Amino acid sequence: MLKKYLIAGGDLRYVTLAEALAGKNSVYAAGFDKNVIFSKKVTLIKSLASLKERVDYIILPIPATNDGVTVNTPFSGNSIPLGGLTSIIKEGGIVFGGRITEEMNALFKSCGIKVEDYSAREEFAVMNAVATGEGAIQVAMEETASTLSSQKILIIGMGRIAKTIIRQLSGFGAEVAVAARKYHDLAWAEIFGCSHIHIDDLGSFLGSFDIIFNTVPAMLLDEKMLKTLNKNCLIIDLASKPGGVDFDTAGRLGVKTIWLLSLPGKVAPLTSGKIIAQTIENILNERGAEPVPEE
Amino acid sequence: MLKKYLIAGGDLRYVTLAEALAGKNSVYAAGFDKNVIFSKKVTLIKSLASLKERVDYIILPIPATNDGVTVNTPFSGNSIPLGGLTSIIKEGGIVFGGRITEEMNALFKSCGIKVEDYSAREEFAVMNAVATGEGAIQVAMEETASTLSSQKILIIGMGRIAKTIIRQLSGFGAEVAVAARKYHDLAWAEIFGCSHIHIDDLGSFLGSFDIIFNTVPAMLLDEKMLKTLNKNCLIIDLASKPGGVDFDTAGRLGVKTIWLLSLPGKVAPLTSGKIIAQTIENILNERGAEPVPEE
Amino acid sequence: MLKKYLIAGGDLRYVTLAEALAGKNSVYAAGFDKNVIFSKKVTLIKSLASLKERVDYIILPIPATNDGVTVNTPFSGNSIPLGGLTSIIKEGGIVFGGRITEEMNALFKSCGIKVEDYSAREEFAVMNAVATGEGAIQVAMEETASTLSSQKILIIGMGRIAKTIIRQLSGFGAEVAVAARKYHDLAWAEIFGCSHIHIDDLGSFLGSFDIIFNTVPAMLLDEKMLKTLNKNCLIIDLASKPGGVDFDTAGRLGVKTIWLLSLPGKVAPLTSGKIIAQTIENILNERGAEPVPEE
Amino acid sequence: MLKKYLIAGGDLRYVTLAEALAGKNSVYAAGFDKNVIFSKKVTLIKSLASLKERVDYIILPIPATNDGVTVNTPFSGNSIPLGGLTSIIKEGGIVFGGRITEEMNALFKSCGIKVEDYSAREEFAVMNAVATGEGAIQVAMEETASTLSSQKILIIGMGRIAKTIIRQLSGFGAEVAVAARKYHDLAWAEIFGCSHIHIDDLGSFLGSFDIIFNTVPAMLLDEKMLKTLNKNCLIIDLASKPGGVDFDTAGRLGVKTIWLLSLPGKVAPLTSGKIIAQTIENILNERGAEPVPEE
Repeated sequence: MLKKYLIAGGDLRYVTLAEALAGKNSVYAAGFDKNVIFSKKVTLIKSLASLKERVDYIILPIPATNDGVTVNTPFSGNSIPLGGLTSIIKEGGIVFGGRITEEMNALFKSCGIKVEDYSAREEFAVMNAVATGEGAIQVAMEETASTLSSQKILIIGMGRIAKTIIRQLSGFGAEVAVAARKYHDLAWAEIFGCSHIHIDDLGSFLGSFDIIFNTVPAMLLDEKMLKTLNKNCLIIDLASKPGGVDFDTAGRLGVKTIWLLSLPGKVAPLTSGKIIAQTIENILNERGAEPVPEE
Repeated sequence: MLKKYLIAGGDLRYVTLAEALAGKNSVYAAGFDKNVIFSKKVTLIKSLASLKERVDYIILPIPATNDGVTVNTPFSGNSIPLGGLTSIIKEGGIVFGGRITEEMNALFKSCGIKVEDYSAREEFAVMNAVATGEGAIQVAMEETASTLSSQKILIIGMGRIAKTIIRQLSGFGAEVAVAARKYHDLAWAEIFGCSHIHIDDLGSFLGSFDIIFNTVPAMLLDEKMLKTLNKNCLIIDLASKPGGVDFDTAGRLGVKTIWLLSLPGKVAPLTSGKIIAQTIENILNERGAEPVPEE
Repeated sequence: MLKKYLIAGGDLRYVTLAEALAGKNSVYAAGFDKNVIFSKKVTLIKSLASLKERVDYIILPIPATNDGVTVNTPFSGNSIPLGGLTSIIKEGGIVFGGRITEEMNALFKSCGIKVEDYSAREEFAVMNAVATGEGAIQVAMEETASTLSSQKILIIGMGRIAKTIIRQLSGFGAEVAVAARKYHDLAWAEIFGCSHIHIDDLGSFLGSFDIIFNTVPAMLLDEKMLKTLNKNCLIIDLASKPGGVDFDTAGRLGVKTIWLLSLPGKVAPLTSGKIIAQTIENILNERGAEPVPEE
Repeated sequence: MLKKYLIAGGDLRYVTLAEALAGKNSVYAAGFDKNVIFSKKVTLIKSLASLKERVDYIILPIPATNDGVTVNTPFSGNSIPLGGLTSIIKEGGIVFGGRITEEMNALFKSCGIKVEDYSAREEFAVMNAVATGEGAIQVAMEETASTLSSQKILIIGMGRIAKTIIRQLSGFGAEVAVAARKYHDLAWAEIFGCSHIHIDDLGSFLGSFDIIFNTVPAMLLDEKMLKTLNKNCLIIDLASKPGGVDFDTAGRLGVKTIWLLSLPGKVAPLTSGKIIAQTIENILNERGAEPVPEE
């Protein structure tokens, strides 16, 4: 059954998202007036006022808002007030958004509107790890004058991104080691064909690596550690803030360090849009027994 | 620093374990009088009475006891009373065992002896998944007249064993699909190169598979499901009791079904012994700051 | 366009082959009177005399004949004379067989019948390497009390079977090394993630392996080499006659050695039958411009 | 035993090569006066005249000469005459070079100097396929706004580069298909986990791919084929001249096409230098019984 969606705000990912949804639904887009071209299946609206009917679902970007008052619309010079959304969605409808604040949550709930933070879903994080891993490997290729096949690579951490990069690297013939604290993470490293180092022993081994991917948001690569690196070692930090590297000291020591944040939207916006679409579809599937009331 | 160990009871795995420990420690073994040959590094004792000194650590098998009173000694006709162990271990020493009951735990604690259940450790389960996966693949090879390369394989579940089998199968060229309930498990299936089916949709796809590995201990393959299978499909159930297959109905329908339990000790006793040794080493490393008191 | 086939002689593989062809063709089978059950799509005939029409193609087994006079019919007590085949095939028809001798070739050609040795085709050898590799891995699993994941494995040679086993082993986490003579084979070993040893240096490294797969039909593992092995090493010889191991000396030294010949037909007869069918289809595709004359 | 080398001409690869050899030999370098820094282990000479002793081996770049008269020295403004080399190498010494012409070969042979073309060695081509594959994947990542994991990729050809890219892509989760003419190449594609298309059937399938890597230097992707592509398809042509794409038509049709030549030296100069060093070492090993005469 055809549903009505409003995609409000966001970047190139949300263009892809709108197109992905437009195949089977009625889709409006607001907050895209800078050089974005939609297919004819998507109805671009200039402001909320021009919307002639209420929608079932509104999709906001990540983060949904930067100021707590208006939608995050990097592709538009005009602002969309969060408050204005409450009057264009059906009662019982759902607002989907990323990094939803408590205030925002409260605003919609008070109007009988459900809120879902797709950015907090585990499968969203897993699917994005693929794009993060690919982006990290691309940068490693660009920044080195050797093939990956001849490199000794260390991955710090054994979470989603680490497991994904290990698999992505598997065909390149590089020697890959994992450093982690938990013994079961070290056991997984072995299953995935990597050598492994307990994080407490990291200092003794660090000097043998050519490329280090850090995925742990804790200050592990401090001055003492950085001093043990071989001089051509490249550090690619994928950890969210505050990162895992003492960047100032790395700079001073001449250690080449690159901190990559928010890779999926940058290196693979099309795929990222599809991941958001898939996550929203999953949420709706889970809510299956709980239909949006018909008008 | 040299430690004194007593290995009491168990099967071939514990012979390997004793030998693994004997390199760097003083190791006694009790409960092995049926055709087991130890190297000279291990001192075989006939009964606890013949032990001339107290030990730091006692290692019991999985399960440590079958009757709550004596040690599980499948390789011996003589019994070793659990109570007798308390007088041959130093105060502050550690008893390691598998599937430790509350009663047993209480018995040792009341004597000032620490108890560790190595079979409850996550890394123990992960490392054993490797042996379980290999055993399952071996049986699949033995029971089919086709190569794995030409088979459509379904794995039900996406836990440790499933993830391990997926990787082990990766070089064979089989088409591998995963059925799971959680969306992030389906996302992992995709990362690992598998197609994926939500468990609620399983019925529609089941008929296309040649081999099914079940890892979920819940009755999924019931009569209704079994009737949809193609007639040459082989089911290998790896789930712990009660398994995931209606075995009676499978038998009646002529569906070839094999329930494989406790594979590691059966297909890879040497490796299994080393896994127990590694797990105990991990426990001792974690307890590093907490040394056994010297006499 | 429907073609008429006669499958004459052979084992379980040829039953599968007959069934594979029967979907789109008219298929007769002769030489199968021992407990073989065909579907209704295949017409089983007791002797060539009972065939009421000439066929387009005759398929003989590998080898096509053992005595040069009758078809190789391991599943029948009755013999089928090779000479009798010439009168039941259309002029311009094709006889397919394995290990065709010059005499046999001459016999059919003199009657205007074409002959194709499918066992001499490169793709036939490549596809069979898959079954050989799987069979070898199955035996390695059965004959060792450790997981493959914990083994050091040596593959001698870098031909079809070696390359296939390397890939099949890739998910098990074993350390795999290749010994070969040609430098480009060593380069391939590196691409496929293996360490590598020039065959001239083999003696210095042999003692470190747990499992050796030999694929080279030359006496490499002679007494001098065998004496350097560790005592639990398992040798699996996959080389065709004369093999690559001094089996007598291996026996005397207590080195466990298994010589596996003709694995595809043994471990995967169904797949082997399909491989023969595929190879014959390829030959016919290549001959596309050269149709069998219509009667 | 220490040998004397002269590295004459070439680019960054030959700096790495000089350093790799300098560990165990006496190494001179000529033809590097533009911003190249060598370690102290390498003796940089301004002209051949400043060389005080004869060398055992001279290493020239790929191609060794562009004009047939002087060495190819892209990193120098001064020329090195080929003829001048004959007087600074010992009789019986070896000149190594890439794409050696017959004239050049004759020149050295007439002076009793041996000539080896390392660029014609099979292992050189295999090792370089690794760098070519990595470079091609890097460009594919850079030029697409989707992850590789979500792409349908076609590889045309099944030679060294194709086999290497297939393996390098194996961890990304992309769907990879191979188009080739020989049936055994299609069989290899299947072993390596790819679907496969006979090249004669390519036209019917071409429209379903997102990325095409061509490795065959023949005009396969002509106007008729290009017109069947989906509009966002990216073609990466890795074939040597004349390439495999009708570039003019591709441009006219708006098909994004990138022709990548000589990737190893561009994307991985350090590794490329080591590959040349390894190839020369292999040649010397093979010539082992044929020592350079001592003075």
